[in-house]
Amino acid sequence: MKKLINKAEDVVKEELEGVALAHADLVKVHFDPDFVYRVDAPVKGKVAVISGGGSGHEPMHGGFVGMGMLDAACPGQVFTSPTPDQMLEATKMVDGGAGVLHIVKNYSGDIMNFEMAADMASDEGIKVEAVIIDDDVAVKDSLYTQGRRGVGTTVLAEKICGAAAEKGLDLKKVANLCRKVNGWGRTMGMALTSCIVPMAGKPTFDLADDEMEIGIGIHGEPGRKRMKVKTADEVTEMLAEAIISDLPYKAGDKVLAFVNGMGGTPPIELYIIYRKLEQICDAKGIKIVRNLIGPYITSLEMQGCSITLLKMDDELLELWDAPVNTPGLRWGV
Amino acid sequence: MKKLINKAEDVVKEELEGVALAHADLVKVHFDPDFVYRVDAPVKGKVAVISGGGSGHEPMHGGFVGMGMLDAACPGQVFTSPTPDQMLEATKMVDGGAGVLHIVKNYSGDIMNFEMAADMASDEGIKVEAVIIDDDVAVKDSLYTQGRRGVGTTVLAEKICGAAAEKGLDLKKVANLCRKVNGWGRTMGMALTSCIVPMAGKPTFDLADDEMEIGIGIHGEPGRKRMKVKTADEVTEMLAEAIISDLPYKAGDKVLAFVNGMGGTPPIELYIIYRKLEQICDAKGIKIVRNLIGPYITSLEMQGCSITLLKMDDELLELWDAPVNTPGLRWGV
Repeated sequence: MKKLINKAEDVVKEELEGVALAHADLVKVHFDPDFVYRVDAPVKGKVAVISGGGSGHEPMHGGFVGMGMLDAACPGQVFTSPTPDQMLEATKMVDGGAGVLHIVKNYSGDIMNFEMAADMASDEGIKVEAVIIDDDVAVKDSLYTQGRRGVGTTVLAEKICGAAAEKGLDLKKVANLCRKVNGWGRTMGMALTSCIVPMAGKPTFDLADDEMEIGIGIHGEPGRKRMKVKTADEVTEMLAEAIISDLPYKAGDKVLAFVNGMGGTPPIELYIIYRKLEQICDAKGIKIVRNLIGPYITSLEMQGCSITLLKMDDELLELWDAPVNTPGLRWGV
Repeated sequence: MKKLINKAEDVVKEELEGVALAHADLVKVHFDPDFVYRVDAPVKGKVAVISGGGSGHEPMHGGFVGMGMLDAACPGQVFTSPTPDQMLEATKMVDGGAGVLHIVKNYSGDIMNFEMAADMASDEGIKVEAVIIDDDVAVKDSLYTQGRRGVGTTVLAEKICGAAAEKGLDLKKVANLCRKVNGWGRTMGMALTSCIVPMAGKPTFDLADDEMEIGIGIHGEPGRKRMKVKTADEVTEMLAEAIISDLPYKAGDKVLAFVNGMGGTPPIELYIIYRKLEQICDAKGIKIVRNLIGPYITSLEMQGCSITLLKMDDELLELWDAPVNTPGLRWGV
């Protein structure tokens, strides 16, 4: 296992210490229980937006804490759900009196623990709404998940709901907006290589030197099909077709296209994917009006990519373009 | 060779096509000869700033074209110098009458070709100044280079000189500022794995499963020492000591710390490096006042990192903080 780490058991703690040191102007990190939160939290009268999940997907979620996006993020150990006490303490820390939205990726552990935290927070008088993200078209059920997995759309939902909360929308409206984003977003990923969970010390799965896996999950869960390595154009076609043939894209639609690197894939390859994706969308009359290209929801050092398409309307465009100031996404400030 | 590409010989062309499609609001791409340039070029009366070099280091340089940074970037084939006609045509395209600064990394081919282009541009009446970046403390001479190689400080010089040009400084002042940045910046890198140049199809160098190389160049040129893999803290100490013991850092200095991913290294590892780096600087009384953490000058899919420290004063801080709007760096707009 070749990684720039110290002890495997210290990876998450030390990464959080690094985030706290590097971005003290934007976030603070609370330890035991662990969560990253806005330096100015709680923001009085504003709906707070929280997400969380296993570590290993950075910058998601801790890198998206800051003005215009998340109020807090709860990182579990690598590829392991955070515990209810993390979400509960984060919820109490950032609630500004207008309630808290929990954005939860569809993994059984995450859902169970976020539900427990929401119940406990309600007992303490905090209004909580939870929205589940389940945008991965690759498979129906999977390891750790009933139904579809929650992947790339999560990043977009966090940006858009964070902007809505900043604008002053109430909890019900921000939660409904999150449901709309989830309903309009679709993702599929693929891997050229496995990643290695530090505590495991060996690849999560084996892929031959000439093989790739289409439809992989962000923890290396099985995808749709293992096959010989294809060209970037063929990979893009496979991912885009699966996404577009699912609801809800049609000629005339505007979309945001998100080409995500899995952690080990350099920018040069992501732009080759984007090129083909825009050609495919163009041929179908789907207009890409915004894009995001880079490593935003990673799987440690996995080589591969995912494509997310999110249907856009004027409301989503305005919220996407709104200022954001986080370690991982920044514009307008 | 596992990569998300089509034909090896089309990698650069297709990547540029992707950039042109994705960032049409910011840049245009000229083909034959190839260069990326600001959509609003030439900006009348403003010094133009150009850089370039082999591809494979994205987002550098094409991803740094836009308001507040580069006016144009000339990409060669992967790890291959661009040709003089690229720089000449780019220079003519972006000159707004106030002259053009060429920021050139210290590789023999880049220098020779940028010099030829500058001579030809001068013949056509365009004022050109060139500044060489040679910030890599790892080795004295290397493959492709006499003296020190030009690496991470290049990214910082492009941001700072771009801001100075935007502010209206004249060519001599922007060039002198670039020399100041180069004089105050120091970098060293390391690799856990080699990268594979698409046209070569096999690793540039071999590293055993338990080995790393300290002082590696961004093309996989030999570094200082090959050794057994060390912890992130030990790696950070080796890089930071080599940088800090070189001029010009001392207790009381303010620096910008740039922890760069080589393309295959995920954010979680870079933050573990940053954590130790800040501890080391802190112990020496060197204050990190700004930071940049992520893959900004990559070596295809190489796993590894580099650390750059740039001494900062009020002038550099103001220019670093100035608005920038490029595909790869964006804030304030």
